[in-house]
Amino acid sequence: MRKFIIDTDTASDDAVALVLALRQPDIDVKAITVVAGNVPLAQGLQNALYTAELCDASVPVYAGCAKPLLRELETAEAVHGEDGMGDIGLPLCGREPAPGHAADVLRQAIKSNAGDITLVTLGPLTNVALALLREPELAAKVSRCFIMGGIGTGHGNVTPTAEFNIWVDPEAAKIVYESGLPISMVGWDISWQYATFDADQADEIRRIGTPLAEFVIDIQKTLTEFSMRENALAGFDLPDPITMAAAIDPSVCRYKRYRVDVTTGEGLARGITVVDRLAVTGREPNVDVAVSADRQAFVKLLKRSVS
Amino acid sequence: MRKFIIDTDTASDDAVALVLALRQPDIDVKAITVVAGNVPLAQGLQNALYTAELCDASVPVYAGCAKPLLRELETAEAVHGEDGMGDIGLPLCGREPAPGHAADVLRQAIKSNAGDITLVTLGPLTNVALALLREPELAAKVSRCFIMGGIGTGHGNVTPTAEFNIWVDPEAAKIVYESGLPISMVGWDISWQYATFDADQADEIRRIGTPLAEFVIDIQKTLTEFSMRENALAGFDLPDPITMAAAIDPSVCRYKRYRVDVTTGEGLARGITVVDRLAVTGREPNVDVAVSADRQAFVKLLKRSVS
Amino acid sequence: MRKFIIDTDTASDDAVALVLALRQPDIDVKAITVVAGNVPLAQGLQNALYTAELCDASVPVYAGCAKPLLRELETAEAVHGEDGMGDIGLPLCGREPAPGHAADVLRQAIKSNAGDITLVTLGPLTNVALALLREPELAAKVSRCFIMGGIGTGHGNVTPTAEFNIWVDPEAAKIVYESGLPISMVGWDISWQYATFDADQADEIRRIGTPLAEFVIDIQKTLTEFSMRENALAGFDLPDPITMAAAIDPSVCRYKRYRVDVTTGEGLARGITVVDRLAVTGREPNVDVAVSADRQAFVKLLKRSVS
Amino acid sequence: MRKFIIDTDTASDDAVALVLALRQPDIDVKAITVVAGNVPLAQGLQNALYTAELCDASVPVYAGCAKPLLRELETAEAVHGEDGMGDIGLPLCGREPAPGHAADVLRQAIKSNAGDITLVTLGPLTNVALALLREPELAAKVSRCFIMGGIGTGHGNVTPTAEFNIWVDPEAAKIVYESGLPISMVGWDISWQYATFDADQADEIRRIGTPLAEFVIDIQKTLTEFSMRENALAGFDLPDPITMAAAIDPSVCRYKRYRVDVTTGEGLARGITVVDRLAVTGREPNVDVAVSADRQAFVKLLKRSVS
Repeated sequence: MRKFIIDTDTASDDAVALVLALRQPDIDVKAITVVAGNVPLAQGLQNALYTAELCDASVPVYAGCAKPLLRELETAEAVHGEDGMGDIGLPLCGREPAPGHAADVLRQAIKSNAGDITLVTLGPLTNVALALLREPELAAKVSRCFIMGGIGTGHGNVTPTAEFNIWVDPEAAKIVYESGLPISMVGWDISWQYATFDADQADEIRRIGTPLAEFVIDIQKTLTEFSMRENALAGFDLPDPITMAAAIDPSVCRYKRYRVDVTTGEGLARGITVVDRLAVTGREPNVDVAVSADRQAFVKLLKRSVS
Repeated sequence: MRKFIIDTDTASDDAVALVLALRQPDIDVKAITVVAGNVPLAQGLQNALYTAELCDASVPVYAGCAKPLLRELETAEAVHGEDGMGDIGLPLCGREPAPGHAADVLRQAIKSNAGDITLVTLGPLTNVALALLREPELAAKVSRCFIMGGIGTGHGNVTPTAEFNIWVDPEAAKIVYESGLPISMVGWDISWQYATFDADQADEIRRIGTPLAEFVIDIQKTLTEFSMRENALAGFDLPDPITMAAAIDPSVCRYKRYRVDVTTGEGLARGITVVDRLAVTGREPNVDVAVSADRQAFVKLLKRSVS
Repeated sequence: MRKFIIDTDTASDDAVALVLALRQPDIDVKAITVVAGNVPLAQGLQNALYTAELCDASVPVYAGCAKPLLRELETAEAVHGEDGMGDIGLPLCGREPAPGHAADVLRQAIKSNAGDITLVTLGPLTNVALALLREPELAAKVSRCFIMGGIGTGHGNVTPTAEFNIWVDPEAAKIVYESGLPISMVGWDISWQYATFDADQADEIRRIGTPLAEFVIDIQKTLTEFSMRENALAGFDLPDPITMAAAIDPSVCRYKRYRVDVTTGEGLARGITVVDRLAVTGREPNVDVAVSADRQAFVKLLKRSVS
Repeated sequence: MRKFIIDTDTASDDAVALVLALRQPDIDVKAITVVAGNVPLAQGLQNALYTAELCDASVPVYAGCAKPLLRELETAEAVHGEDGMGDIGLPLCGREPAPGHAADVLRQAIKSNAGDITLVTLGPLTNVALALLREPELAAKVSRCFIMGGIGTGHGNVTPTAEFNIWVDPEAAKIVYESGLPISMVGWDISWQYATFDADQADEIRRIGTPLAEFVIDIQKTLTEFSMRENALAGFDLPDPITMAAAIDPSVCRYKRYRVDVTTGEGLARGITVVDRLAVTGREPNVDVAVSADRQAFVKLLKRSVS
């Protein structure tokens, strides 16, 4: 069994990524750690707990940081709905997380599976940064860390230069990117190019007819409206799921190794993932940046997971 | 006759752009104003004066600002040679600029040709910014301002996020981009994609055999070495000439209109031209950004100009 | 006759400083140049023109920059009144400035009196910076430049770290402080310690009974209310007049020579005049910073000027 | 018994502060937590362990963060000696810290003594910030936190605007100052005004003749040379000890309550503790800032502690 830990600010696309991981027979999700991001921490916890329950998974879900390291929390209810899950009326309350803090759980889970553990991050990197601040040696014990975050090339979704997860807590991202973690970064550009679903494509999945198939489509309601209106997409896109797919199946994304640095300024200088393609900085490459994806492999994996 | 003013930090690719403009029978270059950038001001003046002389042009050449508005000057002798012209032994000294300051000349030339004047900038925007600070109404009197500067999409040449002309004086660039000037921006990405010349392509021009044909190739000596070594180009590229070509012939570049803002931070946040393709900033579009070019039209114009 | 040029964002305390200068029999005020600051440019012009008229002075008044070099203009009507002159009903309209731009006038006046001219600045340093950008050699031709601006020690009046004139256009201030001008800086701390007037002290001046005596007190109406309410002063204070007094009479202030740098960040890092008293930066001293004042000499000069 | 926790980057003046605390019969020092600052972590640990041993104290000493949250570590061997203890040949090696990380120890010690524990910080605030990031509720459980750090008024010792402890890790300081901790801040200005010792004053203590008396003076060797040469002090000053004295004896310092914010920029905008004396920010006061000290009370306490 392959071992995963998933750090998530669970909203509508995170939930699909959780489904992908929890439904793989050969993957043992050791822990789901939740961080504030798309929605406040308490809502993210409920969303993760509900999703795990729907998958019949006994994975423990832990609460982490309720705000970024240094900044005020900025959430994205406009993108994912007031409840982060498309506001379709799901009963997202009353479930209880496991005791313990996400940062401690990350440390314990990584250390007890040192060298044999995949970390997948789907939200701001606050929890992971906090674990690394407390125990910098952790970085060397993770087999690989797949990060949904940043931009490999092209345009951001919060500002022209920044993607939401990195923008929300750029200081945490800087710590993580400079930590020595073996990072594979799946930027928003990959999602935008390879993981959008128009009405027909969404319907094709929904018609699989299982509760999970309906769930993964229905919760994208707010996201679909937002993406079509604000980002000129043909429908919704699934950044977290394609990142999870990349973590599950190495053939989903192709990567190139580059130096990536994170800016921590304000305005347009906040949370840029600067990818040094031409090596003009002279700095050591530190990240495998996804440069293309196999959409078919991703969609196939998604369909199989909800069947 | 169409009327041009050219602001330039004359080094090897600026010189080719000057040749292009000065050799057009239907273009009257009213003034060449020089600014510190690729090389210190005094060297840039000599390079512009020499090039004008070589073209048998009686255009006046004026000295402008010797350093950026707020920062220390950073030059690029490593890219263009100690003399900025490839260090091929040209007699680049002893010529005298016309009396008057570039910023005043820009103002006078624009006002006396209000509504009928094209401004082409090939260097840092210090002179232009200074003219605009002194007389903000100037912006509305320029027919069009073609700027070689910034990045439309992709990678920078000084840092991963910045192109040299903008990076050298980002505050000047900010003033110019926010001034209301009708800007057509030709970024380094356009040069890199449509204006590179490998050894064979360079030779093809050189073999035209005129002194001008030899000049425009020979002075790229240092640039060629630098571009192949540092930027992984197949040979040299000609950002200033393709910008001038775009100013001369509207069919050379295609544009899209976007909001472009310039960052004025330090390090990776210095001198980014942030192009808001998805309109996430909600700010009014202010720049026509070149998105593609017709290489053949450009090369044909170049060849004809040196024949 | 000593020769002065005065750059001012004319509001209630600038007006008193103008009175001081214009009423000195041995001082020839060559020009008053106006800049946006306390009030928009047009209002500042009217206020300067009215004050000069009241003093029966034939000094030309020129319009300068309507906004800071890089930032939006921030004004201080809350401090000085909607008309900048205490809203006491003065007829502040209809007068015409002399033709020409303040930055050009500064350059001409300084050059034609090179080595024999005192510059006194009472507002943001935009005009002066613009003149210096256009002609850096100007700095060496000024005998002395008295700047009302910044903080020598202690607390700011806009933020805890910044004084209004510097804060409004910190980039201009940076240019001026680094220009080589022989600067004598009179910070807000000097005004606060040596140039406050409580009700009795104000009355003492007003009772001199001349129109000018009444004018200099009555226009402080809004300033008095603001200073008592917001800055815990006993009455109004007169930063610009004590600076002018220092320029008129060398015995009014004592100075120490220090390195002073201006910060150009945002928030609490905007427009700080950093005085390096302990020489920890290792940078060359560039400013004579006023460290104390002779209040009696100042008040005597003020009284004599309005008598 | 009063309960203390001391966080320290143990160098020569920290050591004296430790002596002060460890020698108070009515104070139970629960833990000494060490952070990188004046010297690298390993050296600071040895210095703290040696000092505790010299005091015959059985207090556990714990290792904390080896570098600031986001920045590279900057140390101060030029100020305190290569070994941080004046390079007088002390055997500062081979001792072992207690197992556990400083941030965890801070959390445990504070929680098990909630409402009845004084925290004294003598170095950069990295450990404390990390504890607060992991458990924000901690702030409300500390009775009082005495911080040697920042500047109440006046001049810095690293830059004109910043004191070393805050400057080294400004992000940590920002987190701590905004955490809700009940902070009493003793700035470098207090040390400089009330805690300097010239040769005679130092001798007076040394002549007490005990090993501790000699120790507290002899280890200031490098500091003395540095302070006289660089800061124009008459001898060494003892910022950490006067802070510890303030924590031990409430009558040592007088305080005023102000808003204090920490800047996190670069250069002169790095690590300023902005004290809003005039309440111009409108932000809630959060810190009791020491405004004066009783030097005699401090010296008496120091003498008694080493007798």
